[in-house]
Amino acid sequence: MKSAILSVGTELLFGQIVNTNTVFLSNQLNLLGIDVLYHHAVGDNPTRLDRLLRNVLSEVDLVITTGGLGPTQDDLTKEVIAEVMGEALVLHQPSMDSLQGAFHKMGRTMTENNKKQAYIPRNAMIFPNSQGTAPGFSLEKEGKKIICLPGPPREMKAMFEQQVRPYLEALSEDVIYHRMIRTFGIGESQVETQLLSVINGQGDPTIATYAKEGETAIRVASKRKTYEEARLAVEEMIQKIQGEIGVYIYSTEDRELLEVVGEMLLEDSITLSAAESCTGGLFSSQITEIPGISKIFDRGLVTYSNHSKIDELGVSKETLEHYGAVSPETAREMAQGLYNKTGSDLCISVTGIAGPEGGTPEKPVGLVFIAVLYRGQIYERKVQSRNVNRNWNRNYTVLSMLNFIRQILLNCY
Amino acid sequence: MKSAILSVGTELLFGQIVNTNTVFLSNQLNLLGIDVLYHHAVGDNPTRLDRLLRNVLSEVDLVITTGGLGPTQDDLTKEVIAEVMGEALVLHQPSMDSLQGAFHKMGRTMTENNKKQAYIPRNAMIFPNSQGTAPGFSLEKEGKKIICLPGPPREMKAMFEQQVRPYLEALSEDVIYHRMIRTFGIGESQVETQLLSVINGQGDPTIATYAKEGETAIRVASKRKTYEEARLAVEEMIQKIQGEIGVYIYSTEDRELLEVVGEMLLEDSITLSAAESCTGGLFSSQITEIPGISKIFDRGLVTYSNHSKIDELGVSKETLEHYGAVSPETAREMAQGLYNKTGSDLCISVTGIAGPEGGTPEKPVGLVFIAVLYRGQIYERKVQSRNVNRNWNRNYTVLSMLNFIRQILLNCY
Repeated sequence: MKSAILSVGTELLFGQIVNTNTVFLSNQLNLLGIDVLYHHAVGDNPTRLDRLLRNVLSEVDLVITTGGLGPTQDDLTKEVIAEVMGEALVLHQPSMDSLQGAFHKMGRTMTENNKKQAYIPRNAMIFPNSQGTAPGFSLEKEGKKIICLPGPPREMKAMFEQQVRPYLEALSEDVIYHRMIRTFGIGESQVETQLLSVINGQGDPTIATYAKEGETAIRVASKRKTYEEARLAVEEMIQKIQGEIGVYIYSTEDRELLEVVGEMLLEDSITLSAAESCTGGLFSSQITEIPGISKIFDRGLVTYSNHSKIDELGVSKETLEHYGAVSPETAREMAQGLYNKTGSDLCISVTGIAGPEGGTPEKPVGLVFIAVLYRGQIYERKVQSRNVNRNWNRNYTVLSMLNFIRQILLNCY
Repeated sequence: MKSAILSVGTELLFGQIVNTNTVFLSNQLNLLGIDVLYHHAVGDNPTRLDRLLRNVLSEVDLVITTGGLGPTQDDLTKEVIAEVMGEALVLHQPSMDSLQGAFHKMGRTMTENNKKQAYIPRNAMIFPNSQGTAPGFSLEKEGKKIICLPGPPREMKAMFEQQVRPYLEALSEDVIYHRMIRTFGIGESQVETQLLSVINGQGDPTIATYAKEGETAIRVASKRKTYEEARLAVEEMIQKIQGEIGVYIYSTEDRELLEVVGEMLLEDSITLSAAESCTGGLFSSQITEIPGISKIFDRGLVTYSNHSKIDELGVSKETLEHYGAVSPETAREMAQGLYNKTGSDLCISVTGIAGPEGGTPEKPVGLVFIAVLYRGQIYERKVQSRNVNRNWNRNYTVLSMLNFIRQILLNCY
């Protein structure tokens, strides 16, 4: 099936907002095996919308529109679609009832213009709006289909996920199932090299790799006659991939590393403290994003100056002078000093050169030392990022810290 | 002048990348007073691109394309434009020389397909590419203009800013000058209310407000015959706005609050330490994003547990028991304890309820107390965010802390 996405709304043309609806829908349609040939955006102008819609319909089987379903005079998508498809707008009583119910609930009187939202082209199939007032619909004529969705992303996404996706799936003979594998510590090209035999042998499931900041994600998708067949094919492929690069995989369900590590710590009630230099509190700040983490997170010390490393963590002046603040020795003493203070089950420390300044040939920008003291045992890791961007390095360092904790807890590092 | 933006590239239609080029160009064209009527995106398919381009040219005066200028067989934008405009592709020797120079510099031999990039439609005006190899160009015929830009956002933006914008400005009789005012602590609707007399009186300059996370930005733009006239009109309007809501304005040059405060601290070499509870290190982590901050930032203490507040900052057990961890008393003792430890010129502390759990009727989610000890004087502020989202509250709290520091340093709070 060939499709186009048509966004309606003058605000898009001002460049003040990003058209996330189109990105979402393109991704979803491709996952359903529906080709997307065009993206179009047009303002709240019925003449242009009419012309564009006729042009697009002459080229594709399916047009999905977003926006222009609201109660104001600007909102004209439905009117134009009705005109182009040759159907009258008729009152849809259930939509009117639900509109009136919504206004009643808010304790407000429904103004006349709001009634407009309950008028839908005759013969349309209606998608009620679980997140707002304007319903969506699908309308077919002479083999061409228009699916009309609201503009606010939250309403559009919910309607797509709850109603449009199943509707489109039912149209297709095939079912697509996909999963996203998340890895850390291995580059995209290395993933491809290591999975060469797996990838080369593939027809279905398909494998695609995506580079994220410091990470590589792998999408495994299968298109089969039934959901169960597709799911089994994907599961089998994930096991093959785990056999090749399992050590780098932290999730086969598209979860964030922070979430995975947070859950591991919370599950076993492992108390935690952190001593940070180059990351300046970013590790603590991310750890404390996890709701409920106060049960196990004791404290974080951002010992940015040498003085504070001595003062707060008891790092020896000699170590700082002899090996420097960025050294495995300093990292180790930081972790040890943190443990002496807190007694936390897991004490992690980090020191490094975030850049852009401060690098030397021996200690270049991006060099980082991490130490972890976990139940009496010290673990150390050296990380060298290839980037000179300060924020990139700091983010990459925090991911490295999280992954190091994950590996220590799993006893595989 | 009426325009359309046409993005070329199959990758856009997969929904894996966001079309930031279109957002940037729409914004820029609107600032130049050029109306944007359509956004279109199409894959690397010459038949569809040809048809779409002819359709679009029949409706607008100016089409800006991005993408499809590279060396590979997929890259066909130039070929299609040449065909549609009825011009042959001819070798542009300066572009060829610069291509060869670039390959020579990289120590690589230029492959045959790379030469394709130096062929440009006859009669085009060429825009050299300062960030990459493919040049852009502008081509006019029968009053219709096509401007053809490379797809990589870095190359496209640099080419637009260095060459296309001046070129378009020269086409227009008018010049647009604009500035962005940044405020904190005042909502969008309150800005509009307080600026009512100023806004109502306006023809030119125009004023537009934008709500950002916890902030309100105000764009002031003027369209005049000369740059100087426009600039003066905007300056005058900014002064009027400052007269009305100056206390909330932290920048009239679209700078970030973090940057503004960082500069103030660095300029006067004011040493700084922070004690954070609810923000979990986010303040320290943001402060240490500023390059060179190590000169003045001593340390940050993320005292998340009650125990660590006592231990690290000497907050008294009685205060915690009697007033609770989230109280002005605790905030004050945190700042005092931090000063006792560090002697920093400015010691800031924060304690609050980030949510989503932990709120009570007396101390709801979003309640935050900030204390600052600056050169012997204690300053306190209570903040109540109206949001229950954890990350929103944490970000808003950090902005509140930065703004409080700014006000203390300026002696206006």
